[in-house]
Amino acid sequence: MSGSSFGKAFHITTFGESHGPAVGVVIQGCPPGLFLDEAVLQKALDKRKPGQGIASTRRKEPDTPMILSGIFQGRTTGTPIAIVINNIDAHSKSYTDIANLFRPGHGDFTYHQKYGIRDFRGGGRASARETAARVAAGAVAQLVLDRYGIQIHSFTLALGGIAVQNFDAKAAAQNDLQCPDMAAARAMEERIKAVKQQGNSLGGTVQITAMQVPAGIGEPVFDKLDAEIARAMMGIGAVKAVEIGAGIQAATMTGFENNDQMDKTGFLSNHSGGILAGISTGEPIVVQVHVKPIPSIQLDQKTLDQQGQPAVISTTGRHDICAIPRINKVCEAMLALVITDHLLRQKMVA
Amino acid sequence: MSGSSFGKAFHITTFGESHGPAVGVVIQGCPPGLFLDEAVLQKALDKRKPGQGIASTRRKEPDTPMILSGIFQGRTTGTPIAIVINNIDAHSKSYTDIANLFRPGHGDFTYHQKYGIRDFRGGGRASARETAARVAAGAVAQLVLDRYGIQIHSFTLALGGIAVQNFDAKAAAQNDLQCPDMAAARAMEERIKAVKQQGNSLGGTVQITAMQVPAGIGEPVFDKLDAEIARAMMGIGAVKAVEIGAGIQAATMTGFENNDQMDKTGFLSNHSGGILAGISTGEPIVVQVHVKPIPSIQLDQKTLDQQGQPAVISTTGRHDICAIPRINKVCEAMLALVITDHLLRQKMVA
Amino acid sequence: MSGSSFGKAFHITTFGESHGPAVGVVIQGCPPGLFLDEAVLQKALDKRKPGQGIASTRRKEPDTPMILSGIFQGRTTGTPIAIVINNIDAHSKSYTDIANLFRPGHGDFTYHQKYGIRDFRGGGRASARETAARVAAGAVAQLVLDRYGIQIHSFTLALGGIAVQNFDAKAAAQNDLQCPDMAAARAMEERIKAVKQQGNSLGGTVQITAMQVPAGIGEPVFDKLDAEIARAMMGIGAVKAVEIGAGIQAATMTGFENNDQMDKTGFLSNHSGGILAGISTGEPIVVQVHVKPIPSIQLDQKTLDQQGQPAVISTTGRHDICAIPRINKVCEAMLALVITDHLLRQKMVA
Amino acid sequence: MSGSSFGKAFHITTFGESHGPAVGVVIQGCPPGLFLDEAVLQKALDKRKPGQGIASTRRKEPDTPMILSGIFQGRTTGTPIAIVINNIDAHSKSYTDIANLFRPGHGDFTYHQKYGIRDFRGGGRASARETAARVAAGAVAQLVLDRYGIQIHSFTLALGGIAVQNFDAKAAAQNDLQCPDMAAARAMEERIKAVKQQGNSLGGTVQITAMQVPAGIGEPVFDKLDAEIARAMMGIGAVKAVEIGAGIQAATMTGFENNDQMDKTGFLSNHSGGILAGISTGEPIVVQVHVKPIPSIQLDQKTLDQQGQPAVISTTGRHDICAIPRINKVCEAMLALVITDHLLRQKMVA
Repeated sequence: MSGSSFGKAFHITTFGESHGPAVGVVIQGCPPGLFLDEAVLQKALDKRKPGQGIASTRRKEPDTPMILSGIFQGRTTGTPIAIVINNIDAHSKSYTDIANLFRPGHGDFTYHQKYGIRDFRGGGRASARETAARVAAGAVAQLVLDRYGIQIHSFTLALGGIAVQNFDAKAAAQNDLQCPDMAAARAMEERIKAVKQQGNSLGGTVQITAMQVPAGIGEPVFDKLDAEIARAMMGIGAVKAVEIGAGIQAATMTGFENNDQMDKTGFLSNHSGGILAGISTGEPIVVQVHVKPIPSIQLDQKTLDQQGQPAVISTTGRHDICAIPRINKVCEAMLALVITDHLLRQKMVA
Repeated sequence: MSGSSFGKAFHITTFGESHGPAVGVVIQGCPPGLFLDEAVLQKALDKRKPGQGIASTRRKEPDTPMILSGIFQGRTTGTPIAIVINNIDAHSKSYTDIANLFRPGHGDFTYHQKYGIRDFRGGGRASARETAARVAAGAVAQLVLDRYGIQIHSFTLALGGIAVQNFDAKAAAQNDLQCPDMAAARAMEERIKAVKQQGNSLGGTVQITAMQVPAGIGEPVFDKLDAEIARAMMGIGAVKAVEIGAGIQAATMTGFENNDQMDKTGFLSNHSGGILAGISTGEPIVVQVHVKPIPSIQLDQKTLDQQGQPAVISTTGRHDICAIPRINKVCEAMLALVITDHLLRQKMVA
Repeated sequence: MSGSSFGKAFHITTFGESHGPAVGVVIQGCPPGLFLDEAVLQKALDKRKPGQGIASTRRKEPDTPMILSGIFQGRTTGTPIAIVINNIDAHSKSYTDIANLFRPGHGDFTYHQKYGIRDFRGGGRASARETAARVAAGAVAQLVLDRYGIQIHSFTLALGGIAVQNFDAKAAAQNDLQCPDMAAARAMEERIKAVKQQGNSLGGTVQITAMQVPAGIGEPVFDKLDAEIARAMMGIGAVKAVEIGAGIQAATMTGFENNDQMDKTGFLSNHSGGILAGISTGEPIVVQVHVKPIPSIQLDQKTLDQQGQPAVISTTGRHDICAIPRINKVCEAMLALVITDHLLRQKMVA
Repeated sequence: MSGSSFGKAFHITTFGESHGPAVGVVIQGCPPGLFLDEAVLQKALDKRKPGQGIASTRRKEPDTPMILSGIFQGRTTGTPIAIVINNIDAHSKSYTDIANLFRPGHGDFTYHQKYGIRDFRGGGRASARETAARVAAGAVAQLVLDRYGIQIHSFTLALGGIAVQNFDAKAAAQNDLQCPDMAAARAMEERIKAVKQQGNSLGGTVQITAMQVPAGIGEPVFDKLDAEIARAMMGIGAVKAVEIGAGIQAATMTGFENNDQMDKTGFLSNHSGGILAGISTGEPIVVQVHVKPIPSIQLDQKTLDQQGQPAVISTTGRHDICAIPRINKVCEAMLALVITDHLLRQKMVA
């Protein structure tokens, strides 16, 4: 079935494995007349690209997108847009020695259980490399959002147990970790260096926001805007928790504290995170995701081989220490995709 | 579009408003040959029913289900199963005085923005009453799960800021709040009473587990089992956060701490919550949802009317103080629906 | 899976068996603000109703629709519209003697092969009774079409081998068979009487047209307007062939003969049937369907029982002699559903 | 929306324009473990390829497929299979002089109406070139069918008004037109030559059969096997009519004549075309499609330009005289896709 498709109105289908010939995406439902070329995609892909920043793998992928369809004279035509990103720097040899082992924290065991066959090279379909296709699709979605003036941003709120103390949106642009607190950012970098030395890895927390989303998008009852955001975010490999607005804090508040009252200036608070009953309020949409540490570590761990025999494993391939900040761009892309989908869906209602 | 449908293989469509003639559900894809009658549904609905327990509304709905199709001689036939639950105890008069006001924390404002027309009686489509249909569908899904021996349970981990200290699964069956800690349960009840007196309301945290789910279900990459669970849970009206396995804690752990190692006895921990790379591991599936306080409270709050004029509102209808424990049954139903859907989908792979 | 659903933007799900409690439909994606009540539905259902006309069964079903949701103060709200039509005049006893036999031309054998269990009463889910739900949904779709001034009509072009000679649209309103040729209509009636006497049955041909459909609806490449019409029509029980525009004749024409040239007045012919490359041209949409004879006949036929033993069967229940003219209303409904779906889909493009 | 997707269980998405960089397809839901490489696809594509046979365009496309994903060590893995076929021999210059004109019988006018922008080169997305992607997908579907021993064949029953007189399946393999009557084949070739000389074009009729399809596949009520076949076939550019089994003839038969009786040897006739109530009977599935003449002709025709001014047009690009026999392979592919989809869907029922 279509497990690699996302969205109903703005509908994407991704494909590709970490060490196959390419990853890519086909976008259906993109409105005609948008200016789109490879440069637009490249700009977005460069921000997600491996090989940059302290927490990142040394794999060097140029991530050069090719648009195969759906464009004519520099504009979208309304037909499917296929984008392919070739895999260049794939060192498959690094993986042959663990072809028979289930890496802890990875999908090796579960893919084997599901399919009886798996592409063990670099995680195959379960690799974070698949998210390059999402980022390319998100860049196209953003062209639709631009028509509404909708802006999407992400902020690293915590990393390796170090949390932001003072939130300064501008600061996030001034460090590699997209952290809105320069002091915290520096502490996070120290933590990364220390943990890298140990051959271990880290997780963290990212906030994603969308500004200027018009009120009235999202569909009762299963396609609520927050439900679709939750699916979008939890479907990113390393994400283990998703919060909307006040999120977990809402559980400890009273109704009086949590309710967002209104006066002539609009909502007096935004505990709802910009979504009530699954439909946007016009306030900023605020999402937090909690990201587990990268499972590939250089420390010895107990595991099994495909024959069920005990083994010890440590990962020697090239891997990030932390999914942040590269995952931030994936989260932004997924939020852009959800909102674009629902903006188009709302055109059928209004 | 089909925003009131859920699932691909086990596909449900719900309908109905709080104060319309009925709520209900049509189930497609249910395997033939299952023993199903109204009694099976009634048993499940009785557990979700309003009018029982300390935190619940006084609305008395018998919630009597009628099966209109898909059954022959007591067994499912493979064709769509339509279930209707008539609304009996709907006091629409209570709502006429707030027909023109947007209740804080409710979908009144957003439905108005979306559709330009709304059924203001009791929240209309956004009412928790809609979840009766989900619970009925979940009871049918459970018949499929029974064939695999899969059991789904829920536990109230926190309510009104009071958290469970000692987890004793058996205790959960001995108090109305499904709380696995009798001392905490009693404290929660006291908290409910106090807050009720104040005309305020409470939220809390629920854990839902599924035992004996076979390894190998869930689909890369957008229909990951955890992504679909997140959508299912966040699509329940009051839920503001969803965690899988270690959830938020995973963000503060190192890779070595978080990875679930294996030996011949199986996984040595279950931080993954029974899901790796979106596919089940065979370990218990563990989900936590965080529920906001009921927005209908008797305290004065600032709001606007449909003409944009300021107003003060307090709710006088019959309402729960806390969505827990009634929401627990809805969460169980949604988890049953997701797992059933993916069990059937896996039949096409294996 | 969702085999009882139809449409993407205007999405319907039907349910119900011939001799179960009810048939019905849930409509998703209906725009808000349309005036809808049971009278609108009743008017449409009355035209499809059994028990009227020379070719019809004597089963007397009032076909009284109940709207369970999606309506507030007489208008649609944008939420799912559930419609239930109770089965009243179901004589299940007539079927018990053939419970174990596969009726030729019916779905008895194939349902048994598919599900291993079947509701043998009156054809169960395969009964033409299911089409009442389609007609109700079509009546709602027509409310959308009314906004565009789109009119749908059907004409009986042939019945029992007797074909229309002179097409006079007004004549179709003056005979029970919707035949646009009064002389042919009378000959058809004679044919029906004669064949009825013999205990045999008849088929025929129906043309369905949609006027004032705006140019530009329909989606490349699999959801072409004609492709969706073909699915819609062929999915009606007795239909064995579907033509669009020149249809079969197109196969014998040259390109020069078949091409619809244009001048300032518009298209100079309409061999395309109002659809080019799957998208509407603005010309009338013209569809023909060919309907097999009713399989239930009173003549002895060879068959098998469920144990594979030979048997002789003749049908004694109440049955139509010809699906025409009742099927005409079903064809109209299906065309209305397809066009409505694509009108809404086009709102996302334009 | 997803108008370029087809199938629910075996789900394909095609993309690409006639003169863009490439056409291609992404296949989801393909079972793991099938042996698949480019050679399998090439063999199927070679049969559809332009540049061969008397009725074909002189465009020379090698149609070399590249598999970008979903394959590991020569076998399918269960993840999406992306196939790309680069466009090599695209002479876009031939089209610039008609960039502003609507070619009669083509989608130029309707695409313009729909999108307001169109890739006029060679028909863009509406080109028959798009069907190369379908044929590639059909070749993958056939691998699934091979497991069941299902064989799909096509036969040219008529071309340019010349119909087969004696059906000899073996003869079809002995002429380029796949015509099961050598004498008719020769007459068809003469007809093609004559019409080519005139700068005109021809249509015809193709029969497609599937043998050894197990009884019990197809889904009530909208996803009937015949409904899905009708959609699949009518969605091929030039097809204007689809018949199943007795098709149009069924409309003139009595119930006694049309019903397929059974005895211990099975069905005594196959007027149903292997499908009853939308579900396969186990008999051969028999489909006929009627194909309009190629709209691109060298004769002068009246048309309009994009500004609504009258013009005269004749086509000078490279074009087929008749869609047959190349379309035969597309029809086979579509039938393979429908049957594969329903075989997989049935795995969830049984």
